[in-house]
Amino acid sequence: MPKNPKIKVIAKSPAEWFAENKQIAGFDSPSRALYTSLREFIENALDAAESIGVLPEIRVRLRKLTKEELEELGVALNKVKGEYFELVVKDNGMGMAYDDIPLLLGKVLVGTKFAVIQHRGRFGLGGKMALIYAEMETGSPAEVFSARPNDKTVSHFVLKIDLRKNEPIIYVRERLPKSHFVDPWWNEKLEHGTIIRVITYGSWAGARNFVYKYLRLLATITPYATIVFEGPDVRKIFERVVDKMPSPPRISKPHPQGIDLATLRSLLEKTNAKTLKEFLTMEFQRVGPKTAENFCKYAGLDPNTLIKKLRNNEKLLVKIVSAAKSFNFLPPDASCLSPLGEDLLLEGVKAIFKPEWCSAVQRKPFSIEGHPVIVEAALAYGGNVPRGIRLFRFTNRIPLLFKEREDVAWKALESINLSNYGIKKDEAQLAFFVSIVSTKIPYSESSKDLVSPIPKLKQEIELAFRELLRRLKMYLSYKQKKRLREETKSILLKHASIFARSLSNILKTDSILKLREDQIFPILVDLIDTVVEEE
Amino acid sequence: MPKNPKIKVIAKSPAEWFAENKQIAGFDSPSRALYTSLREFIENALDAAESIGVLPEIRVRLRKLTKEELEELGVALNKVKGEYFELVVKDNGMGMAYDDIPLLLGKVLVGTKFAVIQHRGRFGLGGKMALIYAEMETGSPAEVFSARPNDKTVSHFVLKIDLRKNEPIIYVRERLPKSHFVDPWWNEKLEHGTIIRVITYGSWAGARNFVYKYLRLLATITPYATIVFEGPDVRKIFERVVDKMPSPPRISKPHPQGIDLATLRSLLEKTNAKTLKEFLTMEFQRVGPKTAENFCKYAGLDPNTLIKKLRNNEKLLVKIVSAAKSFNFLPPDASCLSPLGEDLLLEGVKAIFKPEWCSAVQRKPFSIEGHPVIVEAALAYGGNVPRGIRLFRFTNRIPLLFKEREDVAWKALESINLSNYGIKKDEAQLAFFVSIVSTKIPYSESSKDLVSPIPKLKQEIELAFRELLRRLKMYLSYKQKKRLREETKSILLKHASIFARSLSNILKTDSILKLREDQIFPILVDLIDTVVEEE
Repeated sequence: MPKNPKIKVIAKSPAEWFAENKQIAGFDSPSRALYTSLREFIENALDAAESIGVLPEIRVRLRKLTKEELEELGVALNKVKGEYFELVVKDNGMGMAYDDIPLLLGKVLVGTKFAVIQHRGRFGLGGKMALIYAEMETGSPAEVFSARPNDKTVSHFVLKIDLRKNEPIIYVRERLPKSHFVDPWWNEKLEHGTIIRVITYGSWAGARNFVYKYLRLLATITPYATIVFEGPDVRKIFERVVDKMPSPPRISKPHPQGIDLATLRSLLEKTNAKTLKEFLTMEFQRVGPKTAENFCKYAGLDPNTLIKKLRNNEKLLVKIVSAAKSFNFLPPDASCLSPLGEDLLLEGVKAIFKPEWCSAVQRKPFSIEGHPVIVEAALAYGGNVPRGIRLFRFTNRIPLLFKEREDVAWKALESINLSNYGIKKDEAQLAFFVSIVSTKIPYSESSKDLVSPIPKLKQEIELAFRELLRRLKMYLSYKQKKRLREETKSILLKHASIFARSLSNILKTDSILKLREDQIFPILVDLIDTVVEEE
Repeated sequence: MPKNPKIKVIAKSPAEWFAENKQIAGFDSPSRALYTSLREFIENALDAAESIGVLPEIRVRLRKLTKEELEELGVALNKVKGEYFELVVKDNGMGMAYDDIPLLLGKVLVGTKFAVIQHRGRFGLGGKMALIYAEMETGSPAEVFSARPNDKTVSHFVLKIDLRKNEPIIYVRERLPKSHFVDPWWNEKLEHGTIIRVITYGSWAGARNFVYKYLRLLATITPYATIVFEGPDVRKIFERVVDKMPSPPRISKPHPQGIDLATLRSLLEKTNAKTLKEFLTMEFQRVGPKTAENFCKYAGLDPNTLIKKLRNNEKLLVKIVSAAKSFNFLPPDASCLSPLGEDLLLEGVKAIFKPEWCSAVQRKPFSIEGHPVIVEAALAYGGNVPRGIRLFRFTNRIPLLFKEREDVAWKALESINLSNYGIKKDEAQLAFFVSIVSTKIPYSESSKDLVSPIPKLKQEIELAFRELLRRLKMYLSYKQKKRLREETKSILLKHASIFARSLSNILKTDSILKLREDQIFPILVDLIDTVVEEE
């Protein structure tokens, strides 16, 4: 008979837990961590600017620490594997309120992105993970300057997260007069926006290519943003190529399909509705009084059931949840989404890839588990497009760089026989772009690197690709025809003078009009032109 | 000038957060959720048995709810998309202490698996996610019976997690006399172990194949366990094929390589050491007094620095962390790992795949970022092995079913030219098995479905595969030779009588010995035998 084992039960704070499972948010190696820190800050910066309808101006500075700074930090000199950096990201976005900053930056599982809305965030904690990671590796706090449009002051904080307590540790908190403020890095004013700075650890050698690829693709999908990247060994500037930006995404009410008990309960707690019918129409999208009644009938519920009664009757709640799964609601409202649009996508692709030809298409909205989805795609051919067949993926306007082969878009591409579109794989020079926007991107299980090959989604992407390939085929055959024509023409022209001579010889016999070779030649040329163009 | 946006800052409890990000733990669709719930419970059950060195006896019951039960639950009848199930899993493991149960089952980010040890758990919250998911879909609490070996009683709990508070809600808590106890499902006693039961939602149609594949592979990698699965439409029994089990993994001290500040700080808080030197030797593996001194010299630290002083000197801590990254410590101790071993692996593969031939190999331990890693692999050929070339992956003795194409083992397999080993892809009948054990499996970013293609790891797997392929090649060529020999032999024998006749004719001329055909024949047969065997 075995003995009772000694088991220690340990409770962790969320901050501790995420610190120890940092790979969940993409901090699993020095290269990956550096890349992820950078992208999380940049994506928050873009969100901040877009949310107030301002064309984004993002500055990123990644600088290796000097010998002196390393000493200052305590790093055992010349014993360093990997490298230490100062990472600063500045945006012209909405800024943060003075009182919100400690919570927004000093505590995990706190955020502003928990609503039903299309946003770039991974789990609303990416940026914070970058702070935690920096803190774990270098022990140094984050510094932030932030100003909202109508504030008279710029908020200045230096803070850390107390991992054990999941609470902010604040070293500096002050309000500076906006009128006199210039930032310590670029010596610029800060009308509105945020500057965040961390001292972090990573491997630039390992991250470099990811970062460059990421920035290139980000510029492609965000052609209305100006992004200046000052890296350890290079400065890259992506000037905006358009001054128009897609309308920002809107927060929408949840769609009843696929709602769960937890969500239902919290909606019931918040609602001002008196009855079930009111509740359904007030708190959900696509539910009017009529639909509400039909649904209640369908679920075998009384539309006049009082909310009080609902709140403490599990059984009725389960009835709602289970019936909602199969009731035929209108598909979710896609107007809350913010796709890039065919024109902007085209501009982005042209600006970055400089193709000989390209085209873009946007598919009609559809829905997955109560969330609206829109697929946009582009195809670029020739010009500066790299040799071979490339696929570039975007979700809610962020590039996906990893695990391509398991992604829905790759599966869609695989299921197309390119030779049907007159494309020879070995001499191809094609780039496919697919951009998916949704209030909930169906990422594959826990990884945010790839999208699940959901049949409906795969089909939409495939149809988009096929449409683009048809257009390409037309362009190629037109090109082909044009070339043929020119060949025929040049051949005919080569012989024009001979025709002319022989013709004039024949005409000599004619008494009325005697034309010389040099008189006939131009006539022939015109003739050939028209004939060839018409054929 | 834009207006100050209205921003609502929301804080969430960890339980709420995980409920809303359930895809992180693999609950992103009804099919996937059912499969994941099942495997999480089974894996906890195996851990519970192995941890006290008992041969695991696992019972799993997955039963569709009856019409009456659905009514009782409140499910809107005949309006059900997907299905509702009772899932019960029973083990003969160590059980849980009465007082620990509310925490272990009623609160997330609480666990016993946070130590540096090889365990199956995903993030130590898989099982709890299964409870949360069930609660979110059906609102019904979990029921648990648990007994530890030396307890006189069986603990009985019915409880839920209050997602908002991340605290248990307890409906039933009682101690039942073990001597009289029989469980409500199998009417068996419970000497030691746990029975957990949830009412959950899912799609069996979608989960079935995953579950079957999973059980088959689990039985392969756990040949010492008996697993009885009573499913909605079938009963599968995997009887143990060996009574020997690998020694359980041991908790080990952290290896200094790649330690971070957070971990260092918490070690410093707990330690009884007085000086840095003592601390290093007491709290880390592979650090003796000599190494400790060398390391301090290397990092430019005084080995006699007092712990008190260290605790509140960030700079010194950073020195330690940064120097530890590059100091040349002994590789981590692999004796804490629990690989299956070549023999058991072989038994498992034979029992489930019934191949004509198979072989297994265990590689030497190596380390990744301060964590020991052991690679085991097997190759099965012919017999009941399915047509084609299959790869089956295991990490810490759990099967990985998804995203194969991006897995390190697949990349390793791809880089081998099978034809060099006399294998024709189209007529092959091969199954490759790879099992990785480590105190930290390098899963690819956040997904636990695939292992990162870390070059060192890829190489180890490739070498294992090549070794196995060499052995297979030998077997195949031996087989080949054997067949050839038999052919030659049968041909020779076919003509033996003719030889015999002609020989006897010749011999007739000889005066001394006159042998008849029937006298010569047996001599010839012997001759052929020896000749052919020798060639």
